[in-house]
Amino acid sequence: MRASAYPLVDAGLAASRVLELVPVLPGEDVPLAEAAGRVLVDDLVASSPLPPFRSSAVDGYAIRAADAGLRLPVVGESAAGRPFQGELPAASAATVLTGGVVPAGADTVVMVEEVEGGDGWIVAPAGFPAGRNFHKPGDDLRPGDLVLRRGLPLGAAELGLAAAVGRARMRVHRRPRVALMSTGDELVEVGEEPGPGQIVDSNRWALLAALNEAGAEVTLLGVAPDQPGPLRELVLQALAAHDALVTSGGVSVGTHDLVKPLLESLGEVHVGRVKLKPGKPFTFATLPDGRVAFGLPGFPVSSLITFEVFVRPALRKMQGYAALQRPALPVRLGYDARAPGDRTEYQRVTLSREGADLVARSTGSQSSSRLASLTGANALVRVPAGDDGIPAGTLVEALILSLPA
Amino acid sequence: MRASAYPLVDAGLAASRVLELVPVLPGEDVPLAEAAGRVLVDDLVASSPLPPFRSSAVDGYAIRAADAGLRLPVVGESAAGRPFQGELPAASAATVLTGGVVPAGADTVVMVEEVEGGDGWIVAPAGFPAGRNFHKPGDDLRPGDLVLRRGLPLGAAELGLAAAVGRARMRVHRRPRVALMSTGDELVEVGEEPGPGQIVDSNRWALLAALNEAGAEVTLLGVAPDQPGPLRELVLQALAAHDALVTSGGVSVGTHDLVKPLLESLGEVHVGRVKLKPGKPFTFATLPDGRVAFGLPGFPVSSLITFEVFVRPALRKMQGYAALQRPALPVRLGYDARAPGDRTEYQRVTLSREGADLVARSTGSQSSSRLASLTGANALVRVPAGDDGIPAGTLVEALILSLPA
Repeated sequence: MRASAYPLVDAGLAASRVLELVPVLPGEDVPLAEAAGRVLVDDLVASSPLPPFRSSAVDGYAIRAADAGLRLPVVGESAAGRPFQGELPAASAATVLTGGVVPAGADTVVMVEEVEGGDGWIVAPAGFPAGRNFHKPGDDLRPGDLVLRRGLPLGAAELGLAAAVGRARMRVHRRPRVALMSTGDELVEVGEEPGPGQIVDSNRWALLAALNEAGAEVTLLGVAPDQPGPLRELVLQALAAHDALVTSGGVSVGTHDLVKPLLESLGEVHVGRVKLKPGKPFTFATLPDGRVAFGLPGFPVSSLITFEVFVRPALRKMQGYAALQRPALPVRLGYDARAPGDRTEYQRVTLSREGADLVARSTGSQSSSRLASLTGANALVRVPAGDDGIPAGTLVEALILSLPA
Repeated sequence: MRASAYPLVDAGLAASRVLELVPVLPGEDVPLAEAAGRVLVDDLVASSPLPPFRSSAVDGYAIRAADAGLRLPVVGESAAGRPFQGELPAASAATVLTGGVVPAGADTVVMVEEVEGGDGWIVAPAGFPAGRNFHKPGDDLRPGDLVLRRGLPLGAAELGLAAAVGRARMRVHRRPRVALMSTGDELVEVGEEPGPGQIVDSNRWALLAALNEAGAEVTLLGVAPDQPGPLRELVLQALAAHDALVTSGGVSVGTHDLVKPLLESLGEVHVGRVKLKPGKPFTFATLPDGRVAFGLPGFPVSSLITFEVFVRPALRKMQGYAALQRPALPVRLGYDARAPGDRTEYQRVTLSREGADLVARSTGSQSSSRLASLTGANALVRVPAGDDGIPAGTLVEALILSLPA
């Protein structure tokens, strides 16, 4: 056994290198029902006005403003989808329902609550102005207006807007197809009883959830074979149908670690160790045809933190997102943060509101095996290496995983 | 046509009433792969220690600390899953790989980078202390420890922890099954060319995305029949297989609105109008067997805002979440906010970081038909009714939809 030959790379540099090397995936057409959370490939431009006609904003009566104050016969109705036919005669009113077409000739709409009468005739308040209570064609969008900009992630409002301008399908970046594999002779399936020296493969389930949340389509390869030949075969097969391979475990310097030598033989290993705590053994390699491989450490917290720092931003780049990182907010440290040693530490914290501040408190022991340090964590605080640390009370930028209720 | 008989209810009171009346759904057992985003029904308690054995944190050599500084023969190996058999003899070392069992007899682990030798023998630094570089049984969890508290939403770390303690399935609250229906004679399917007075049914796609994001399982009923008999038939059939009915449109006071009379005949309408802008016609009803119905207005922004204010918190209660509302943060108003009239307005804003502040700027015209006021919106600012408004520069609590990059 020898110490690792890979240089310890600064975590920030390693993250930049990963982002340089992962590709943006091409577009595909999907129906609206499958487009949520995806990123638009092309600008969407309006080809016709929205609303397409003068559309009543309320239930009421369309009149000519000049006739306000007069007793007006109700000569017809303009319900949504069933417009009043022809022009509204002078000195008359037409019932209009919300969303209905304001008849030609009318120039204002009076709400039902504001009129007198209602049984075949109405009186609108004297002096009622023109132009009230209806949307004009093009009020929301004119032909040629940019409806949705390329690169925009599609949520409920964006999909509603796309439908409103007649788009039944959207061209969005493809989701990354990821093959997920655990490595380690000590692993047993969840539900099996571990023997001496064995533990349950828990990373598979944590990483599956993290990958899905980040937008990946995941294939579970299970626990890797512990022989180089079968392992190579499995990985080659998986790469044929996936954009990325994610492994956990087997990237340390131990004599039985098979992942790094395999990645070396298949492509180029760009990062083999990082100055990050937890997560030193993180490995990143490029493989033929634009495929990439992420070798995550085996300790549960290390695998999830390196996922956050390196894999999640990469998956977002692949999907066309402009914002690759978790959002950052200033938080006030509620504890003395130190990262003794030579590695930047991502400390897990809860957040709570105190006045206008978000106060960060440690989730307890930051051991790389202690997943409980991540359960309920709201944010990650990056603490620079060294004995000085950051004293309690300091305002620091934190990566926000979720805001407190 | 007559003005609505329903009282205008304060939006906050209406929201509380909805939350009182929606049920928490019962639990179901799901495999780990389907448990992400779900809420745990019962406390999960550890039945055995984690780690289950003395587990090496590094690749290195297990020794007795008393032997540090001596030349020690390497008498065996303890790889992950293949423990060293028996007790480590005095004045010897065993290779241990990360995750491997620290052999009985050894009391410390020296990292490979710290030793001299390596070919059959090693020398650890003189004075190397006991107890280094390994995790002790129960360091992370002891039997009886609370692993995950009931009511906790399950994310990556929580699922990893559940797997680590041997749980292949989790008991979580059922997702709400929601039937989604659009109403309105003016609606055509997306992809069809609208005729005079017609528009595309866009709410269906916006609400589908919003419902899915909120955790619901959605059945699309399409556009409702415009005759009371067939409509009643469709709704009764849908309610037999769903927890909730969500409609958009048809809840105003117009003569052709069929939804409110139908809900009156099937159950009890608790809210028929709210002092909310946009969203005045919002309707909420309880139906037999704990089912509920949400009647959302037809204007696109109104339907999504009432979804946010009333439906999303209700769906979260149904799924067992403790935090029902969007998180709130203080933001500095970058514009003079006013809500003339008698209704609280939920104004859509973007957020941007300026120093330590989040500054809120209006998304432009807040017309209830203009979906573009919601695209790219980061937050909702609740502006009280009245002409006074809130001047630019004021710090207000905003409901956060998404944080800016």
